[in-house]
Amino acid sequence: MDAKTAKKRTAAVAAALKERGLTGAVITDRANVTFLTGFGGDDSWAFIIGRRLWLLTDSRYTEQAQNECVACKIIQCKGSLYAEVAKIVARFKSAPTLGIENTTPVAVFDQIKKKAKARFKKVPNLIMQIRAIKRPAEVAILRHASRIADKALDRALKRLKVGMTESELAGLIEFEMRKSGAVAAFETIVCFGPNASRPHHIPGKRRLRKNDTILIDFGAKHKGYNSDKTRCFAVGKIKREFQKAYDAVALAQKTAIDLIAEGVKAKDIDAAARKVIAEAGFPVFGHGLGHGLGLEVHELPVLFPKSKDKLKAGQVVTVEPGIYIPGRFGIRIEDDVLVTKTGCKIITRTKTTPPLRALKCK
Amino acid sequence: MDAKTAKKRTAAVAAALKERGLTGAVITDRANVTFLTGFGGDDSWAFIIGRRLWLLTDSRYTEQAQNECVACKIIQCKGSLYAEVAKIVARFKSAPTLGIENTTPVAVFDQIKKKAKARFKKVPNLIMQIRAIKRPAEVAILRHASRIADKALDRALKRLKVGMTESELAGLIEFEMRKSGAVAAFETIVCFGPNASRPHHIPGKRRLRKNDTILIDFGAKHKGYNSDKTRCFAVGKIKREFQKAYDAVALAQKTAIDLIAEGVKAKDIDAAARKVIAEAGFPVFGHGLGHGLGLEVHELPVLFPKSKDKLKAGQVVTVEPGIYIPGRFGIRIEDDVLVTKTGCKIITRTKTTPPLRALKCK
Repeated sequence: MDAKTAKKRTAAVAAALKERGLTGAVITDRANVTFLTGFGGDDSWAFIIGRRLWLLTDSRYTEQAQNECVACKIIQCKGSLYAEVAKIVARFKSAPTLGIENTTPVAVFDQIKKKAKARFKKVPNLIMQIRAIKRPAEVAILRHASRIADKALDRALKRLKVGMTESELAGLIEFEMRKSGAVAAFETIVCFGPNASRPHHIPGKRRLRKNDTILIDFGAKHKGYNSDKTRCFAVGKIKREFQKAYDAVALAQKTAIDLIAEGVKAKDIDAAARKVIAEAGFPVFGHGLGHGLGLEVHELPVLFPKSKDKLKAGQVVTVEPGIYIPGRFGIRIEDDVLVTKTGCKIITRTKTTPPLRALKCK
Repeated sequence: MDAKTAKKRTAAVAAALKERGLTGAVITDRANVTFLTGFGGDDSWAFIIGRRLWLLTDSRYTEQAQNECVACKIIQCKGSLYAEVAKIVARFKSAPTLGIENTTPVAVFDQIKKKAKARFKKVPNLIMQIRAIKRPAEVAILRHASRIADKALDRALKRLKVGMTESELAGLIEFEMRKSGAVAAFETIVCFGPNASRPHHIPGKRRLRKNDTILIDFGAKHKGYNSDKTRCFAVGKIKREFQKAYDAVALAQKTAIDLIAEGVKAKDIDAAARKVIAEAGFPVFGHGLGHGLGLEVHELPVLFPKSKDKLKAGQVVTVEPGIYIPGRFGIRIEDDVLVTKTGCKIITRTKTTPPLRALKCK
């Protein structure tokens, strides 16, 4: 992160805090700490008062913080992070009113309250909402993350073999991402045959068979940002039922993507995708249609039936309808799109929803 | 998890709750949910009242839960998990007193309080303390996880090449774990040369050079349990200063391990290791000496200067002293040991601290 971006982010958070009548905030959420300070390590907090920003960390991370943080004061804590917050707070004549994030663990909040002489107010999604709107530089990183993932998948599929385990194929994809200097955004999901009916199946020892079906849900993490994509394939001959379900999912995805634009209600997009699948005579999926993504794989906004979110330009969301038939197969097609004022741009591919591919396999 | 183990765990948690005057507890911590119910998925809670146990999950995980849970009632929630807790609570004539874990996010606790007619009490580390004592079956899984990791490292080191990036070597190790059906317990840390002075360095594009030094911190996750181990190597010729530092770290580790037994204070073990390193004329490490491990990579007890923990038989802890010289090199030697009544058993290796190996490299 460059100094200009860092200052912009600090200013945006400072303004949001001021709007809520807060002097500052204790930021314990890891991704929010990264967003605000640039620091990518663990076990550290950001602390903001007005426009002054501190990173509270320990000696394991000092060198890393010095390399990564450009616009905040780095404090190498010898005691607890609580004690350091209390120390900074004590410098102020009148007790500040500090925001506390929704995700802060109850015990951490109790300790902060106990140690620091300040008033506290819980602030739901304060930084998450700012993070949800991506700047062009962030979108470029997300695009690049997706390209790394695509390249990894292509290379791995070239080594596809009957008899290979799900775990091995997942490992191959992840290894190819590593070769590009990235890591897996999450544990790669590879499902052969009926295993794909579980949307969050863990790749295991199931071996690839002739005429199997494959579902791969994968992403790369590049410069801290995550891509997230799902593709399905058939090995050898495509069965008619599988093709029919695939076409329904593809149409559901296209219908949803065509609706996406600033101001549209997330739940309406979710409903449109479900309608296509129901009308094709298949059971509707039990998960949401999609979610924001960026520094975390799951961010705001959320696209699901009860979502109260309205899309805003600059948000990046997944669109991932599916059909799951227990004991038979599972299909999900997932792409990442950037919401714009008038529509959206698909950042995980250039063309329309890919047709079902039959893979050749040794 | 078999039904007998499941029942034992439920009984242990029920007894601990009763001891604290609690009717039950809402378990939101993922690893604690796994420990209690056997369920390995995400976004789900366990709910216990007396000895009655529920898993609250959603349709994405129903199939997985049915396969994994043997002694609890699985509820596929259509609304929120909060609403489901409220529904169960409403069945009781008098409002129960429920334990809430330390790690529960503040907003989640607020919602539970709002929805469920019950009294609440925060319970620090209730299940964590029970989890810290491993049963023989768990130790066997941890041993096996370590063997998978060792095999992966051996195979990856055979493919070591001058010019290879840190990220590529990390990827190779992880791919070999995948081939054994396991996954990396955490993002594998590979540091070449001076990069090792940052204990949590992220493997990057730095390429291996002739006469480089290597630090690898890695572990495998097998059946939900994590191993954690660090090894250092020299490529080609070993430099005298590196050997001297390595010997000091090895002696610090041996000194610490020799002290470990039930009843010993964690901070005393930590202090003994630091003393060896200071006496050898090197700067002492900024991180703790070690931590418990199991379903999570970091569990109770903690071995660091301010730890209040006393070791108990059945705990499994890492012992990982280090020497870090910024701009020069970093060394850490880490093994996992099982605390016994009279001493400890090293589960990540059979022999003494390994001597420094000079690797041959293409």
